[in-house]
Amino acid sequence: MSKILQTVEKEFLEYVKKMTHLNEAVGLMYWDLRTGAPKKGVSQRSEVIGTLSADVFSMSTSEQMKSYIDELCQEQVYSSLSDVTKKTLEEVKKEYERNTKIPPEEFKEYVILQSKAESVWEEAREQSDFAMFQPYLEKLVDFNKRFIGYWGYEGNKYNTLLDMYEPGVTVDIIDATFSKLRDRIVPLLQKITEAGKPEASFLFEQFPKEKQKEFSLKVLKEMGYDFRAGRLDETVHPFAIGLNPGDVRVTTRYVESDFRTAVFGTIHEGGHALYEQNLSEELVGTPLSTGTSMGIHESQSLFWENFVGRNRGFWKHHYASLKKYAGTQFDQVDLDTFYKAINIVEPSFIRIEADEMTYALHIIVRYEIEKGLFNDEIEVRDLPRIWNEKMQEYLGVTPENDSQGVLQDVHWSGGSFGYFPSYALGYIYAAQLKQALVQDLPEFDELLEKGELNPIQKWLSRNIHQYGKMKKPMEILQDVTGEGLNPDYLIRYFEEKYSSIFSL
Amino acid sequence: MSKILQTVEKEFLEYVKKMTHLNEAVGLMYWDLRTGAPKKGVSQRSEVIGTLSADVFSMSTSEQMKSYIDELCQEQVYSSLSDVTKKTLEEVKKEYERNTKIPPEEFKEYVILQSKAESVWEEAREQSDFAMFQPYLEKLVDFNKRFIGYWGYEGNKYNTLLDMYEPGVTVDIIDATFSKLRDRIVPLLQKITEAGKPEASFLFEQFPKEKQKEFSLKVLKEMGYDFRAGRLDETVHPFAIGLNPGDVRVTTRYVESDFRTAVFGTIHEGGHALYEQNLSEELVGTPLSTGTSMGIHESQSLFWENFVGRNRGFWKHHYASLKKYAGTQFDQVDLDTFYKAINIVEPSFIRIEADEMTYALHIIVRYEIEKGLFNDEIEVRDLPRIWNEKMQEYLGVTPENDSQGVLQDVHWSGGSFGYFPSYALGYIYAAQLKQALVQDLPEFDELLEKGELNPIQKWLSRNIHQYGKMKKPMEILQDVTGEGLNPDYLIRYFEEKYSSIFSL
Repeated sequence: MSKILQTVEKEFLEYVKKMTHLNEAVGLMYWDLRTGAPKKGVSQRSEVIGTLSADVFSMSTSEQMKSYIDELCQEQVYSSLSDVTKKTLEEVKKEYERNTKIPPEEFKEYVILQSKAESVWEEAREQSDFAMFQPYLEKLVDFNKRFIGYWGYEGNKYNTLLDMYEPGVTVDIIDATFSKLRDRIVPLLQKITEAGKPEASFLFEQFPKEKQKEFSLKVLKEMGYDFRAGRLDETVHPFAIGLNPGDVRVTTRYVESDFRTAVFGTIHEGGHALYEQNLSEELVGTPLSTGTSMGIHESQSLFWENFVGRNRGFWKHHYASLKKYAGTQFDQVDLDTFYKAINIVEPSFIRIEADEMTYALHIIVRYEIEKGLFNDEIEVRDLPRIWNEKMQEYLGVTPENDSQGVLQDVHWSGGSFGYFPSYALGYIYAAQLKQALVQDLPEFDELLEKGELNPIQKWLSRNIHQYGKMKKPMEILQDVTGEGLNPDYLIRYFEEKYSSIFSL
Repeated sequence: MSKILQTVEKEFLEYVKKMTHLNEAVGLMYWDLRTGAPKKGVSQRSEVIGTLSADVFSMSTSEQMKSYIDELCQEQVYSSLSDVTKKTLEEVKKEYERNTKIPPEEFKEYVILQSKAESVWEEAREQSDFAMFQPYLEKLVDFNKRFIGYWGYEGNKYNTLLDMYEPGVTVDIIDATFSKLRDRIVPLLQKITEAGKPEASFLFEQFPKEKQKEFSLKVLKEMGYDFRAGRLDETVHPFAIGLNPGDVRVTTRYVESDFRTAVFGTIHEGGHALYEQNLSEELVGTPLSTGTSMGIHESQSLFWENFVGRNRGFWKHHYASLKKYAGTQFDQVDLDTFYKAINIVEPSFIRIEADEMTYALHIIVRYEIEKGLFNDEIEVRDLPRIWNEKMQEYLGVTPENDSQGVLQDVHWSGGSFGYFPSYALGYIYAAQLKQALVQDLPEFDELLEKGELNPIQKWLSRNIHQYGKMKKPMEILQDVTGEGLNPDYLIRYFEEKYSSIFSL
């Protein structure tokens, strides 16, 4: 490569690094707003976030960016670039094309609509009044249909939306996967429901917040979460945020009458955090320094929450300790009763409160609706009816009103279509990755029984975390498991686990 | 004004607003680094701060900025601008000229030297080895001498440095003021020392941190600090930071064996914070939205710390409450004994541990040295000797080593010359403002006795805080007190207070 082109590559990487710096500042302001920023400063802080975000957006769509892309993507030049530069280029090019294909005026209108729609949705949900939200949702869907027009699509219009969250995963793949999953979970769920609900009232006794926190911190530490590169705070809606691999923060929520919120919430967010803490250092300062997709990210949080946190061996080791923190709550409860109680499966209306098995059905309802909307097979005005019908068909329950039904999630009000499938994909990936992990660490259950989580964390970091966006989700899956998306492992996990727990 | 020029004014204000937004983001990152950011993320976060700060610097010295200044400073245009725009223009013009007059290469060299010098100073202080720091300090002084050459000066070279921290205050003014102060404090100090040290051992008993925090929060609230626009955190070095008037944060430090650190520290930082919380809303988004100078800012913190927090009436009201928080520590101590103990005057080596009276002498030592350095009357290599001589002359004590002497402060290692006088000016201003306040609120002492601090806070906000940088320090002083800088009020305060306490 010529000296001049080496300089271009270097300048390009500096340019991109500056964008990551602005994003890191925005990330910290976001975290601060949620963990304790004074109320009176919020509107001004939002303006600051707006300024920095606009800067990043304009850098991503600038003439300068275009010229970097054009120069570096020339065939002979491209082949001489480092792998990190190549992948970075791929990311910013995709972003450039996505952002510049929409006419600026139209995009501005859309941004205004988004923020309006979110506040209307909030009120509509409160009043359980879908009609109030309907015209906004219609407009949001229309905008996205037009965007798909600008962006183009392959095979199915909805693929273009999926691609934003889970590149490489298409309607064809999801259809095959989700229908198999649905067809096997639905009858299993019926059997479990018929088996009757196990004893669980002991879960809901008073567990002091401070003690929950101590236990949560202890588990986080055992998972391998590095407190020199993170911290645990309290928020209404728990989240994990990676500002850089040396600063990955976790938040949780404490409900004194239900310790599960904090404990499983912390393990879940801790799973996300381990991903961000263990990204390769060489990716810092590029857009590759984060999880490769929503779905793979979710696979990490769900792996820890369910395959570790709801595993019998894990509690064989931790139950005595939990009892100590809790006081007398579990004195009369043996391990098996406890294990059964934290694995209750029960159809319910609200996605974020669902157990690990019914959760996938909640997602399938949303996926089928979104796919229908963008293929002109479903009209927005029919959503409440269609939602309730699908809930009845798959989960056997019908929401009593729209705030328990079609209005429960924030996603659509922000124009996020194509996002929901990632959650279910996360479950499927997690089960596949677990299978591969057990090949390498056949003593998986014994490790949990001994409280030795370190080899598990190391395996995940080595096989998944370190790569960041250097590998696409399907590449990760193929490299680690030797196959593509396959729901069989998740199905088998459900069938074996719940047959055993509920003696089906 | 023509349409085109109205557009230029508007664009200019938008441009400046963006700079304040970047500064606000930097401010939050700074606060976060000091209050709990994970250690492993610090170096990456420092890069982010560097990127945003460089952006602000390059905006302040850009061609764009020059063209705004040129266009808007044309006589006919200027006169038609709003007052806020005029003052903003004045600020950015000063900044532009200061920053562009230094050749970029030289400035870059200086920035590198600064950061190197700070870490060398840290080690030199630890090892009490001035020789180690000397070559760096010499270079820092040389750079600043050359900068004064670029910037120009009036009357005295040191005036140019003073102007950065306390515009309008010159060597002539300070000489007259400080010498009068020194000549009156030194003999007073001798008399107090001869009177013997009052009983104070009860100050140093164990006072639980949590209880100190509760008391500190209570006092902050009574001062009028708005917790919807702020928060109190813990740091090694306490500070207050105004991100915007709706988000002004205070930190403090708890020493369980000396409650004074937290209580007086919180009141001091609270005084700074009240300034920033009560800036006029119309200044937000301009560089005018902060205290008008270091000295006036310090006058606010010192007013609260000393004129309120070390006032007998204040403790007449609060002593019972302090006793409750403290446990048994003060059970055998009456109010007068307590009041005497928190007003002990005693010569010591370290500026930041000095009492309100000897503090000014510490500053005068530094001022005389800085003035000598920049007028080629003192050589860096002679500093340890000169420092110790002056300490002996004014305070009657000679430091045992350089880390207790000339190496104790960080300021010079960062190239901050001309900063120190602001601290003593703060004391002088505070006493002058107190005098004016008592004219309007003759019941000042009774208000403190009743715990009614609200009228005091309102008076300060109305007369000082709201203006931000719309008024220069000397304008504030003149408008509020009807005169210029005058040390008599501070001298009288010391003489009356300490004659009474120590029955001189």
